[in-house]
Amino acid sequence: MSYCAPVSEYEFLLRNVLKFNRVTETERFSEATDDLVHAILTEAAKMCDEVMAPLNRAGDLHPARLENGVVRTSPGFAEGWKAIAEGGWISMSASPEYGGMGLPHTLTTAVNEMMSGACLSLQMAPLMSQGQIEALEHHASDEIKALYLPKLMSGEWSGTMNLTEPQAGSDVGALTSKAVPNGDGTYAISGQKIFISWGDNDFTENVCHLVLARLPDGAPGTRGISLFLVPKLIPDENGNPGRANSLRVVSLEHKMGLHGSPTCVMEYDGATGWLIGEPHKGLACMFTMMNNARLGVGGQGVGVAEAALQKALAYALERKQGKTPSGTIIDHADVRRMLLEMKADIFASRAILLACAIAIDVANATGDEAYKARAALLTPIAKTFGTETGIRVAELGQQVHGGMGFIEETGAAQYYRDVRVTSIYEGTNGIQAMDLVGRKMMDGGEAAIRMLEEIEARTEAARSSIPDLGTPVWESAENLREVTEWLVEQTDMNERFAGALPYLRAFARVLGGFAHLGAALADPGGPREKLARFYIHRMLPEHASLLEQARAGAGDLYALTNDELAA
Amino acid sequence: MSYCAPVSEYEFLLRNVLKFNRVTETERFSEATDDLVHAILTEAAKMCDEVMAPLNRAGDLHPARLENGVVRTSPGFAEGWKAIAEGGWISMSASPEYGGMGLPHTLTTAVNEMMSGACLSLQMAPLMSQGQIEALEHHASDEIKALYLPKLMSGEWSGTMNLTEPQAGSDVGALTSKAVPNGDGTYAISGQKIFISWGDNDFTENVCHLVLARLPDGAPGTRGISLFLVPKLIPDENGNPGRANSLRVVSLEHKMGLHGSPTCVMEYDGATGWLIGEPHKGLACMFTMMNNARLGVGGQGVGVAEAALQKALAYALERKQGKTPSGTIIDHADVRRMLLEMKADIFASRAILLACAIAIDVANATGDEAYKARAALLTPIAKTFGTETGIRVAELGQQVHGGMGFIEETGAAQYYRDVRVTSIYEGTNGIQAMDLVGRKMMDGGEAAIRMLEEIEARTEAARSSIPDLGTPVWESAENLREVTEWLVEQTDMNERFAGALPYLRAFARVLGGFAHLGAALADPGGPREKLARFYIHRMLPEHASLLEQARAGAGDLYALTNDELAA
Repeated sequence: MSYCAPVSEYEFLLRNVLKFNRVTETERFSEATDDLVHAILTEAAKMCDEVMAPLNRAGDLHPARLENGVVRTSPGFAEGWKAIAEGGWISMSASPEYGGMGLPHTLTTAVNEMMSGACLSLQMAPLMSQGQIEALEHHASDEIKALYLPKLMSGEWSGTMNLTEPQAGSDVGALTSKAVPNGDGTYAISGQKIFISWGDNDFTENVCHLVLARLPDGAPGTRGISLFLVPKLIPDENGNPGRANSLRVVSLEHKMGLHGSPTCVMEYDGATGWLIGEPHKGLACMFTMMNNARLGVGGQGVGVAEAALQKALAYALERKQGKTPSGTIIDHADVRRMLLEMKADIFASRAILLACAIAIDVANATGDEAYKARAALLTPIAKTFGTETGIRVAELGQQVHGGMGFIEETGAAQYYRDVRVTSIYEGTNGIQAMDLVGRKMMDGGEAAIRMLEEIEARTEAARSSIPDLGTPVWESAENLREVTEWLVEQTDMNERFAGALPYLRAFARVLGGFAHLGAALADPGGPREKLARFYIHRMLPEHASLLEQARAGAGDLYALTNDELAA
Repeated sequence: MSYCAPVSEYEFLLRNVLKFNRVTETERFSEATDDLVHAILTEAAKMCDEVMAPLNRAGDLHPARLENGVVRTSPGFAEGWKAIAEGGWISMSASPEYGGMGLPHTLTTAVNEMMSGACLSLQMAPLMSQGQIEALEHHASDEIKALYLPKLMSGEWSGTMNLTEPQAGSDVGALTSKAVPNGDGTYAISGQKIFISWGDNDFTENVCHLVLARLPDGAPGTRGISLFLVPKLIPDENGNPGRANSLRVVSLEHKMGLHGSPTCVMEYDGATGWLIGEPHKGLACMFTMMNNARLGVGGQGVGVAEAALQKALAYALERKQGKTPSGTIIDHADVRRMLLEMKADIFASRAILLACAIAIDVANATGDEAYKARAALLTPIAKTFGTETGIRVAELGQQVHGGMGFIEETGAAQYYRDVRVTSIYEGTNGIQAMDLVGRKMMDGGEAAIRMLEEIEARTEAARSSIPDLGTPVWESAENLREVTEWLVEQTDMNERFAGALPYLRAFARVLGGFAHLGAALADPGGPREKLARFYIHRMLPEHASLLEQARAGAGDLYALTNDELAA
């Protein structure tokens, strides 16, 4: 019944489908041999299966609570955090200079995914710290780094991200939090922030908040925002947590799921903060952590999908019903259709996730602009397709359970309730899609076209060697290329935005087809070829109607007036 | 912020798109004039908006509880039931001989839909009673009818359906509940039943259970099952509730949603029951109520979708964000896409729902076999597409709300949690799809082909008069016809089942296109034509990839062994 982290899936993808060798061929990551990868993933899997997965239901049943201004976490979460921290999983890709392991982000991505499948609510906590570590590594002063990074990497302290305000959700530029210089190099931060994941806890010595606020001379909009580090307890001269800062948790949200993760309303009332990076450049600094956080959220979707599939498979193999060869429901055609859709999309979304992480690693290790562009291109796709896969697979998992899927005791419903938010936070999926067709196509579509040309080139041989798989994948890339070329010609951005999400989904379908084809070629006649055949014959064709929507333009969206739409 | 039942939508569909005149042209329903329809729907809408909708959140926050073996219902639900009963909404289509209003089932379908949008948990109660009334009208003795029907129709008593047992879910034939003759014409019923909606309450004098059980000489499987009426309190000689029967509520399920609807585990321990219909013909009797219950569940999906859309629209019109003409998010392309998808699919699914109800009415009023076949064909489509629309629209409604969609206070999440079960109960959607391609095609596809020929004939003129709408609809019907012809040629049923759900979805897409085209023709240049254009250009194309799946066959589903699938 319990979760089992899919180590062999990551290894198969890295070795046989994706170009992980491009990472290990760099000097920086030359030590990440197959043996090391195996050892790391196996060790992380053990912690996920044995420590984190057993906490998942307790987190749902016993949500984090606010008691006298302090967050009390779900039973066992403190021990879970300790295991994550002691394993080094918070800082596995962080700089060795401050205590990190310096491993490729690809491995962190895999480990984050498996932690998400084991216990999403708890996994949110290290994910937030990882983002903060990365932002500080890139933008903080040496003094701040020396003081904070070792504590964050060891898990003695934890980190949060504070962007959203009640009146400024996706429109970060509308924020009103203020930062006033104190004259001693510090700043007084005031304002209210909402949706702050793990804004407090009862298992780390300190909680460090990265807060976006506006300096007195900050321009309106996004260009006048600065980033500040605001610790719950101000470090004393020895770097130990000292007096309480002027900030507090006002309340926790009552959410559909993710009950073990405290979602805080934070109040800053002249709290002491330190500027991170240049004044007014806060959003750029925040984006450093947001990009990887987006990939991390994509991995949350894939991880929960994996867990939901495992539960559904266990149920389908055990639930007796009807006269089938095995006597269980797994032999029913429609149950099988659901399980195969789940499995095929998990493979596809995981491949995209790891391909994005590989591009990040190669870009970081070599500074190669083409890899930077590829990582930037794949990030919104990995986030959106990963989270949509999480949601769809969790829903199918409930459906496989029949009536039991609606009963909370089975846990199938919890997966849906937990993963639902992933398509919303870290930039809604709609915003990811706008990013893809907007900012990520400011190169005139070069990164996208290059990727599609690579797919066509690498698929060419398969068109004759394994035509029922190779041909549809090649053609789908060609179809996507045509629409991409149409898209970048649209100078009215709303023409692009009108079809942005269907375009992103079509892109994911094509990338998924390419990954499945790679798996088929690596496993001729084997189960991976069979799964690829299912995906390419039954799921890849969706790209065609998605592309029709992608190029439908904005006209039909605005034909109805607002009054007519609301009538 | 509150719910407003969409009376004008029903009226537009009945007058301008669907052939409701075929109902009113029958002698039986000749009194259902436009004025009467308007009066009935308006009166029901008032009750839904003012009485039921305010109960919806209370039902979620204060679930039904089991106290000392008695179900205590959510705050206000007793008053809600009273309003439903006193309005005559339980028995609006029931026989006037016993107190019903004898109105077309089409109107009941509309009223059930609006009650679902107002408060799904409470609406489950009258829906169960309606099914029982119908089963008793068709199959019970005159004595039973005279005793039970007036009480059920007035709402003094309520009814339930007891099919499922722990070891027998979708496979009803595996049930083990027993019925032993008592020698006085009654039977002793023993066994456990699960998932019994409204198995008890604290606001009706009596609760009447229709229970499937096996007589001592009942054959194994579905052919040996009989139907029994088992009241909670056995009526005395005056027909008043007398001594307690040997049955009890063992427990209530903890569900993902629908908290106000008590889902009971029922234990029958030699309870006194009365045979309904012939011995061993219980499943056929139960199907009488199940068919209409399926349509009712389809309406639940549409109703919740409507409520979710209304809430999302209100939010989108009020939520300020970004620099848009209105200053609110409703002007953003992707928000608009979501709202239009919601609106367009609600229209399509409601049209299918009411078309099915109209076919039932004409069949009942005239005995016309073609209408019977049409109703039988449309029932699984209406159930499945209605509930999938409910689920998808509720999810999109959350997405429109952004972060607030995950916070329970907004109510957007509740719609999803409540409606989620509708794709599972009353026969999972997978089973509906098998019914469509199996039992409903035992006529060699005649009913389906006739429907598609009718669509093609009625669309022919529009191919030239309004080609950008008429042509795609005509072609989609033609594509569906081709696959239907392929489908009925498959003698290995698994070849059909492998693509059953995609086939059903494609069928719904085509029927939706036909309904939208009808709306466009009735409102040239108006908002309905604009909505039709959105649907036909952006959503109808999905039918093509669905049809590809529909005819993909079973091979790819069974290529992986069970071990490979579970690996």
